[in-house]
Amino acid sequence: MHLVPDVLAGGRLALARLLSQVENDTPEGRAALNELFEHTGRAHLVGVTGAPGTGKSSLVNQLARYYRQPAQGGDPRTVAVVAVDPSSPFTGGAILGDRVRMRDLAGDPGVFIRSMAARGSLGGLAHATASLVQVFDAAGFEIILIETVGAGQAEVDIARLAHTTLVVEAPGLGDDIQAIKAGILEIADVLVVNKADRPGVENTERALRGMLQLAHPAPRVFRPGSGVGHHGFSTGKAAEESTRNDGTEVTVWSPPIVRTVATEGDGVPELVGAIARHYEHLKSSGDWELRVRARLQAELDALLRDGLVARWRERLPHGRYQQILERLLAREIAPRQAVAALMDGNPGE
Amino acid sequence: MHLVPDVLAGGRLALARLLSQVENDTPEGRAALNELFEHTGRAHLVGVTGAPGTGKSSLVNQLARYYRQPAQGGDPRTVAVVAVDPSSPFTGGAILGDRVRMRDLAGDPGVFIRSMAARGSLGGLAHATASLVQVFDAAGFEIILIETVGAGQAEVDIARLAHTTLVVEAPGLGDDIQAIKAGILEIADVLVVNKADRPGVENTERALRGMLQLAHPAPRVFRPGSGVGHHGFSTGKAAEESTRNDGTEVTVWSPPIVRTVATEGDGVPELVGAIARHYEHLKSSGDWELRVRARLQAELDALLRDGLVARWRERLPHGRYQQILERLLAREIAPRQAVAALMDGNPGE
Repeated sequence: MHLVPDVLAGGRLALARLLSQVENDTPEGRAALNELFEHTGRAHLVGVTGAPGTGKSSLVNQLARYYRQPAQGGDPRTVAVVAVDPSSPFTGGAILGDRVRMRDLAGDPGVFIRSMAARGSLGGLAHATASLVQVFDAAGFEIILIETVGAGQAEVDIARLAHTTLVVEAPGLGDDIQAIKAGILEIADVLVVNKADRPGVENTERALRGMLQLAHPAPRVFRPGSGVGHHGFSTGKAAEESTRNDGTEVTVWSPPIVRTVATEGDGVPELVGAIARHYEHLKSSGDWELRVRARLQAELDALLRDGLVARWRERLPHGRYQQILERLLAREIAPRQAVAALMDGNPGE
Repeated sequence: MHLVPDVLAGGRLALARLLSQVENDTPEGRAALNELFEHTGRAHLVGVTGAPGTGKSSLVNQLARYYRQPAQGGDPRTVAVVAVDPSSPFTGGAILGDRVRMRDLAGDPGVFIRSMAARGSLGGLAHATASLVQVFDAAGFEIILIETVGAGQAEVDIARLAHTTLVVEAPGLGDDIQAIKAGILEIADVLVVNKADRPGVENTERALRGMLQLAHPAPRVFRPGSGVGHHGFSTGKAAEESTRNDGTEVTVWSPPIVRTVATEGDGVPELVGAIARHYEHLKSSGDWELRVRARLQAELDALLRDGLVARWRERLPHGRYQQILERLLAREIAPRQAVAALMDGNPGE
């Protein structure tokens, strides 16, 4: 069945089926991604990450709801949600979460929610997420919220997919800032203190400000050419203008801190405003194109590496890798000699 | 000049020269690594990481000094130090640090200290560190202290080189636990609270205990087959025995917390004791072999990926990659189509 025309025409059933094919990396799914790709590049990708217990899912729900029914006569936007949980392949939490979300936003054709549990590898998860996001983008969803749990490398990789990354904290999680990790702050475009009606919110916000300054004393400036797959950003002190290496003036983004109470919807309009301001910043500074370029080049390089290794493995005689590895472990050959042996064992390469 | 025999015979000048060749990845350096590899595998590799300001360098100095002159008539051990600073290619801090260290331990042929500033890439840094460690190992140094600054992916990668990883904290750094990151705690075999004569040491230690329990409720058990380049360990609650997936009993390591005042040498004998106990644990539980296997296989796979990509790039017509990338960015072709075009553009592959 050819789903692409139906997806482009807005068919929900076709969309659901195509998402499954893409998530399962079927030949049909791959072919569809190739066809759809020319229709991508329009959506605003917003990553949402933070530790468990910060109320991240409720916040994502409220964001979706607000985009559908904005206050003060704003235009409603179509919203897709991709919820990724790298840590729980077994709990079924993603599916349960889906039901709760579905009920909340049920019947609105302008919203589509998709959960994804862990794949075989973190790299695989990041790639699958990128593919789902491409389908939603091609299908015309204007805002794509990418929700991840935790603060490890997987979340950082997935956050790199986004144009705008929200990092969510909450007061009263253990030692207030136990959930804060430097790696995650580095990728934050907007910091959210959710559950802001709880005691300790001032401490959390102060800690966040301190962490931002301690961890990133430099103003946030894009460094061109800082490497594939790396945004090349550092967050930091409030500074509105800076100078690029090539001497041109750039607008510097200083991550704002927004307080919310997601369960009540408090602060959600302000958060949507911060996201919109970051969008304007990306567009006016040229960072939008730089981020898109970095993301697509990183995806190309990762697929290329995988492709080269996969083709090489296909041609490798059965048992050869294990045989060389055992010789390496016995220290009969050095690592580079093992590589040479493995690559030469493949004269067709 | 052929340095390998002199290095194996304990020549310091030859060692210094070979380390430079290996660090600069010269053909001579690569050839020497191949020759030396069969002599590796004897040293105890101890990683030491932690945020700036924790007094990590002083601690490493004191550890080296203690290994050279142990109390209570223990045998002195030969010590090499590899100090890695991924963040400061420009400060020259590594070199200044060297001088201070050198003065402290000068004239003792049983100690060798080598600093390394950042390389082009984090992967390159981890690889260069691994190579230096192999040289020291082959040269017969018994304890190799690998010191890294910070708590990012680079530090985690470098810590994976070690058999035993120390994570150093200190009281009074901002909000006491600002320096603590979950990713770093996951790799800790021994936690050190340095500057333990400062106020707030109880808070820091309590926070560490809480973090250990919050972050890792599961007992620390090796999970076989959990993937190349991943130790497959999780740290956690005190538990002395557990059961592997295959049903065999294993001794479980519960990371101890050791207080030190490095400037005074306080706590250093206890820390050396904890390192020795971890060594015994690794040897008796079989984890030593598992860690060595994971490390060498990860090194093999990384070199193999790099080798395949490098060979492919060599054969790629000039300008082809950029041309395909621009078509991808213009969304004329999809990522997988770009990969296919790049791989097919190389019929010899």
